[in-house]
Amino acid sequence: MKTLFEKADILFGDDLEVLFNGYLGIEEDKIIYVGSKKPTDKYDVVKDMSNKLLMPGLVNSHSHAAMTLLRGVGTGFPLQEWLFDNVIPIENKLVPNDIKVGNQLAIMEMLSTGTVSFSDMYDQPVSQMEAVTNAKIKVNICRPILAFGQEDEPEKNERFIESLWLYDNYNNTDHGRIKIDLGIHAEYTSTEGSVGAYAVEAKKRNANIHVHVSETIKEHNECKEKYGKTPTKWLNDLGILDTKCQFAHGVALEDEDLNIIKEKGITVIHNPSSNMKLGSGFARINKMLEMGINVSLGTDGAASNNNLNMFEEMHLAAMIHKGYENDATILPSKTVIKMATINGARMQGRLDTGIIKEGFKADIIAIDFNKPHLIPNIDYLDSVIYSAQGSDVCMTMIDGSIVYEDGQFLTIDAEQTYEEVRQITERLYEVYDGKKR
Amino acid sequence: MKTLFEKADILFGDDLEVLFNGYLGIEEDKIIYVGSKKPTDKYDVVKDMSNKLLMPGLVNSHSHAAMTLLRGVGTGFPLQEWLFDNVIPIENKLVPNDIKVGNQLAIMEMLSTGTVSFSDMYDQPVSQMEAVTNAKIKVNICRPILAFGQEDEPEKNERFIESLWLYDNYNNTDHGRIKIDLGIHAEYTSTEGSVGAYAVEAKKRNANIHVHVSETIKEHNECKEKYGKTPTKWLNDLGILDTKCQFAHGVALEDEDLNIIKEKGITVIHNPSSNMKLGSGFARINKMLEMGINVSLGTDGAASNNNLNMFEEMHLAAMIHKGYENDATILPSKTVIKMATINGARMQGRLDTGIIKEGFKADIIAIDFNKPHLIPNIDYLDSVIYSAQGSDVCMTMIDGSIVYEDGQFLTIDAEQTYEEVRQITERLYEVYDGKKR
Repeated sequence: MKTLFEKADILFGDDLEVLFNGYLGIEEDKIIYVGSKKPTDKYDVVKDMSNKLLMPGLVNSHSHAAMTLLRGVGTGFPLQEWLFDNVIPIENKLVPNDIKVGNQLAIMEMLSTGTVSFSDMYDQPVSQMEAVTNAKIKVNICRPILAFGQEDEPEKNERFIESLWLYDNYNNTDHGRIKIDLGIHAEYTSTEGSVGAYAVEAKKRNANIHVHVSETIKEHNECKEKYGKTPTKWLNDLGILDTKCQFAHGVALEDEDLNIIKEKGITVIHNPSSNMKLGSGFARINKMLEMGINVSLGTDGAASNNNLNMFEEMHLAAMIHKGYENDATILPSKTVIKMATINGARMQGRLDTGIIKEGFKADIIAIDFNKPHLIPNIDYLDSVIYSAQGSDVCMTMIDGSIVYEDGQFLTIDAEQTYEEVRQITERLYEVYDGKKR
Repeated sequence: MKTLFEKADILFGDDLEVLFNGYLGIEEDKIIYVGSKKPTDKYDVVKDMSNKLLMPGLVNSHSHAAMTLLRGVGTGFPLQEWLFDNVIPIENKLVPNDIKVGNQLAIMEMLSTGTVSFSDMYDQPVSQMEAVTNAKIKVNICRPILAFGQEDEPEKNERFIESLWLYDNYNNTDHGRIKIDLGIHAEYTSTEGSVGAYAVEAKKRNANIHVHVSETIKEHNECKEKYGKTPTKWLNDLGILDTKCQFAHGVALEDEDLNIIKEKGITVIHNPSSNMKLGSGFARINKMLEMGINVSLGTDGAASNNNLNMFEEMHLAAMIHKGYENDATILPSKTVIKMATINGARMQGRLDTGIIKEGFKADIIAIDFNKPHLIPNIDYLDSVIYSAQGSDVCMTMIDGSIVYEDGQFLTIDAEQTYEEVRQITERLYEVYDGKKR
């Protein structure tokens, strides 16, 4: 199966150059041609892409997809009360099928706003994989270890055991679309024994470890009081940073932490919506970028966002640091698009995607520029960041297959998902804060 | 002509209560019924609003609509360089018809994202009025006085004379949809003589005055150096604050300024996108709200945004101050919706809109909640602020007439406007920064 996009404007290559009125050829799951001349070989399908921009599909580097079922729960509360008093009581009611349905809903939002791959931390990964496999989206899944009230013995920690079983059985399945990461929820929900043992297992497997680090100044300072060191130093001393590790949030990271992160090649995942909504603050993203740290972008879960829309996160990432540092020149549009594409793909260990170039996977989105808010368009990179909305995505292609086009989901039954979500919502929120409809 | 919306969820009344599965009746330009029982009188049109939320139309309290033609110009520059080196050289090429077309484009974006009324500062107001009248949107127009290189004699200042002529001839025209405000561009582009004489003319007319104040710390401090007082104090000493005055931006306002603003009943217009994008910083919105100052919301022009989408501004206003002040409890959703509706309407002197209640103008929008990112919906106010996008607006009604519905503009020829914008863009940007397509 060969598809040719013609009359397309294309953000292509490692440095996001613009090709005007070009051609993009795809064979099976790969990009085989990008250029301004019409290729001479035969294509099965030719699609006119006039007034559309083709760009690399987006990578949502930090999410809890099933939390779409908790969209907006605890709005107005700071992180600790949001999590322990609002979110966890609802999460305790979730059954495995809820996780599948919550993921279907999440994937609908992600596909329709241009996300082709996401990194996710949650429970019930087997139910999640069912949704993901059907939808044909790419995902790095981790079931994180936690040590709430558990003894500090890995062999008794059901999460410890399950996360390794998951890695050993499911990493690189579903045509490589599913990858498994190891995961640690956070320093403040972990013990030294479990984390140290986990580092040993991760190194054996050369696995990624996904972990929430220094999301708030409160948890950061409590760690320093408890252990006499920052969460980054604590994780480093336990061997975690000698794995392919990725830090979500990093709002309260100190200079010394950033030096360690740079030295160890850790990716920091910026989640601007969540950090604002929960009152956590501003991660020092410009400083990290200047240091050459790999920074990617994520939505976090829908309870602290409330969207899984990477166009919103790109927009916020580009905007808020300019305001916070009183400097309109920082975080230029190209940098932010890279955070949402190639930087995330690298973090996920997907070295064949995140860029439009020959030989790479055909993970591509199209943006319809025939909209009142997208003309005139004097610079495509700036238009993507400051003008475009997630809803301007008119096509999402993963591994060469179109999975979303013009409002239609080609791998998910939208109406059935809505109906299932409504039924689950009735059950979850019968007593929720008097707000139930 | 009578229209009934049925099976609608409705944000109604002064305090934005939610009516589930209700009825909203309209006769000519007014709301005549809001309630949970089906009215017994006869309606010409009955519309099923299942899965939709009806809420007051939004008021964009600060814009430069024709600057859609300069969308994104000067991205990456701080305010002074953005304005003088990038924006003004392009503005100098604009002819009257450009202003009309730029407004048509702006109004398309505004109507399709739920704005029913806007306050606008720009040149060529007669060309603007042509676009506005055709589109049937509400607008408060001002042509601001400036004193760049002009002598400080009002009778020689063409802008001074024109702005009063505009007020005297066009205020409250087009069925009251067009109002005229007086306007001062800013302290740093004005002289004491002109501003003092303008205050006298404004008081005679009981007119609004719209002015940019303390948008950046730079202009704020330069005023203090020049005059020994803040811009707010300077305007107050010249009599401007004894008119119905409204300050755009107010990022650098000091405590003393806020006391004057509160005492004089000035509205402050928050423009979060523009303040972030230009690196201007964070206006002290929570403090102003706590003091009981009327705060409304605006987009500013498309060159510093790049959108005219009030859902983005509501989202940013709710988000960024929580992050900046490390407090998830401030700027609750209800407060932010009021900033974007009733607070703006009051500022504009439109006391018959901004709320859904009987006797008020039928300025109403509908949001389609049958979208993956809008379910579950556990709290309508939070969903509007954190989940909804401008593109979820499926109907915009002004004075009882539907002007936008399901992607169709009923008062503007969209394709012709796109074509005209493309032609203007070709002329404006033939030498722009090598970025022209």
